[in-house]
Amino acid sequence: MRIEVICTGDEVLTGKIVNTNFSYISQKLEDVGLAVQWETTVGDDRENLLRAFQLAGERADAVIVNGGLGPTVDDLSQEIAAQAAGVELVLNEEWLTRMEEFFRRRSRSMPPNNKKQAMLPATAEVIDNPIGTACGFALDIGRARFCFTPGVPRELRRMLEEQVIPRLLAKSGLQTAIHLKRFHSYGLGESHVDALLTGVEAIAPDGSVKLGFRAHYPQLETKLTVRGADLDDIKKKLEPVEREVRKRIGNFIMAEDDQTLEGVVLGALGSRQGSLTIVETFTSGQIAARVGHLPGAEKIFRRGIVARDLAEVCAAVGLDGSSPGELTPELAERVAQAARQLTGSTHALAVLIDLDDGPDRIDFGGTINLAIAGGDDVASRKSRILGGREWVRLGAVEMGLDCLRRYLQGLPVDERIDFEKV
Amino acid sequence: MRIEVICTGDEVLTGKIVNTNFSYISQKLEDVGLAVQWETTVGDDRENLLRAFQLAGERADAVIVNGGLGPTVDDLSQEIAAQAAGVELVLNEEWLTRMEEFFRRRSRSMPPNNKKQAMLPATAEVIDNPIGTACGFALDIGRARFCFTPGVPRELRRMLEEQVIPRLLAKSGLQTAIHLKRFHSYGLGESHVDALLTGVEAIAPDGSVKLGFRAHYPQLETKLTVRGADLDDIKKKLEPVEREVRKRIGNFIMAEDDQTLEGVVLGALGSRQGSLTIVETFTSGQIAARVGHLPGAEKIFRRGIVARDLAEVCAAVGLDGSSPGELTPELAERVAQAARQLTGSTHALAVLIDLDDGPDRIDFGGTINLAIAGGDDVASRKSRILGGREWVRLGAVEMGLDCLRRYLQGLPVDERIDFEKV
Repeated sequence: MRIEVICTGDEVLTGKIVNTNFSYISQKLEDVGLAVQWETTVGDDRENLLRAFQLAGERADAVIVNGGLGPTVDDLSQEIAAQAAGVELVLNEEWLTRMEEFFRRRSRSMPPNNKKQAMLPATAEVIDNPIGTACGFALDIGRARFCFTPGVPRELRRMLEEQVIPRLLAKSGLQTAIHLKRFHSYGLGESHVDALLTGVEAIAPDGSVKLGFRAHYPQLETKLTVRGADLDDIKKKLEPVEREVRKRIGNFIMAEDDQTLEGVVLGALGSRQGSLTIVETFTSGQIAARVGHLPGAEKIFRRGIVARDLAEVCAAVGLDGSSPGELTPELAERVAQAARQLTGSTHALAVLIDLDDGPDRIDFGGTINLAIAGGDDVASRKSRILGGREWVRLGAVEMGLDCLRRYLQGLPVDERIDFEKV
Repeated sequence: MRIEVICTGDEVLTGKIVNTNFSYISQKLEDVGLAVQWETTVGDDRENLLRAFQLAGERADAVIVNGGLGPTVDDLSQEIAAQAAGVELVLNEEWLTRMEEFFRRRSRSMPPNNKKQAMLPATAEVIDNPIGTACGFALDIGRARFCFTPGVPRELRRMLEEQVIPRLLAKSGLQTAIHLKRFHSYGLGESHVDALLTGVEAIAPDGSVKLGFRAHYPQLETKLTVRGADLDDIKKKLEPVEREVRKRIGNFIMAEDDQTLEGVVLGALGSRQGSLTIVETFTSGQIAARVGHLPGAEKIFRRGIVARDLAEVCAAVGLDGSSPGELTPELAERVAQAARQLTGSTHALAVLIDLDDGPDRIDFGGTINLAIAGGDDVASRKSRILGGREWVRLGAVEMGLDCLRRYLQGLPVDERIDFEKV
């Protein structure tokens, strides 16, 4: 089945807005085994919209249109859809009532121009939008079934998952159930993990498990898309593959599915009534910024200390910093222990970085000295990362949090990673 | 002149990569007075690429193609460009030599498959890429002039500015010089600034100045695009408009052109041999993270302190925190003064937030109490922001930095902004 996407709106076409709706749609479709073949972006312009609808209607079996369902004069999707399908625009009384209720619940009266959002092509099938006034709809243009969706991201996301994807799966004949299992790792590159996982797809007998990746440095997402008759069938097929993936990537898996690394760290601390202090240098608050604002962190995140100067770091944690000497893992250990004692937290993480001198180039690097103190047990690691200031900083933030995760889970904190220079 | 853009590559089409190259191209063209009419994304697929090139060649005067110039088998742009133009692929000896030099300078020998990057359509005009091995080129397909550019963002950016835009301007007949003047503000919404600036375009006699905006909460960019015979002419036309914009937006302008708010703050501190300590609560290190890692911050950024609990904040700056009482601007002032004394820095910023209870919804809010201490002179501000946890956090980070900027520039720190609830 050939699927196309049409994104509309001057803000997207002129680049004022980066088109994250499209990448979201495409990824979500891929997650259920569907593929987008072609994407078109046009502005709020009658002629170009009509041409885009007609061309896609000639080429595709299904088309998702995003945007242009709002109440203002430059929202043209319903009008041009009707024109392309050769039908009239008709007031949908049911949606009008829904909108009036929507405004009433918010103690506002509906502005007259919102009525436009209830004008749909005569042949349109309504696609529900439970959280907004933009009415989704489906209709045929040319040989393709078009689904029109709102540009507001949270409305699009809900409509896509609940309404559009089931319609596409039905049309494609892929009436089976689909499940996506995700593993988040840090420290291994995509091609390395791909090699480690050679053959895992074959563990499922009938080709029902598909392996995929999404790399966003410094994290890597490993995805297993599983197809089955129902959820029980999926569970049965996924289980041995999942077990094998865990065995092969092992300690590098830091979170699964909707978990985040920082959430896993907070959870591990919370479950033992722990509390955390973080000391940072060149990461300058970015590690604390990943953890400190999360719901639940009020009780766990005790204190964050940032300084660029090593003597200042020492002074801030109550060590004599008059001559801190060379930055070493041992010094990081002393800083972490002192920070823990100063604040009375159960755990402390210190990530201290010795940055290269010179211009910011691809071979610019930094040496990371990190330590974790928890009671009498202190662990530390030294690592060197090259790739420019930003690259070093992103890597150090992730390494600090991931080593803390490993420490809390009783795993080695100094396992070799692909991104470090030995 | 009708301009289209074609983005190629499976990673973009499947949404693995968000297409920031396209928004960059479109914005850069807008900055020089050119407009993109249509964008197409296709994967690394011969049939779809050919169709996309042919369709754009029928519709447009100029087409920018991005991606597909690499050395691997799925990089198809040269091959399909030759096919669409009806010419052969020919080895470009000059580019081959350039590539061999490129590798030699890096003490590496050129892998054989890179030779593919020097195979260009027979009628192609080479477009120089001074920082990579992907050779840009231009040729005619249908009625349009196509410019092929590399997918690597930094190579694209350089080629676009130095090579592609001048060609498009020449083709469009807009042979005049163009200059973009930008003002960055915080605190006023786009429609408010638009209203404040009514009529400024008319100050330039001949319609040569165009006003535009780019909002990325919490910042707003106000853009003046100026067209003139040469740079002197532009300067003359821009000067009175620029003066009027400064007069009308005044204190809200926090940076201009390539400046950033955090850079302006660092510069203002550096010029008076100042140093800075930052105390944060719910922003949890995000204010420090904007400043602390910048080149030059080593000497200025003294210390950052983060805590979620008010007693912990007081303890961290050496105040008796056993019963800190209610969070008020006065308490924020005492915290800022204590932080300044503790660390011996010339200035201290404290941004302390009283967060609402309850679920994270659009009406979830926080009360910001911020203070700046610099010697005996202490300033403070209380402000309430609604819009969910993330919105409050982003707003508080910006407000903290902007109030510090205002303090250092001798401007009022408590001027009313559009984003606060009174």
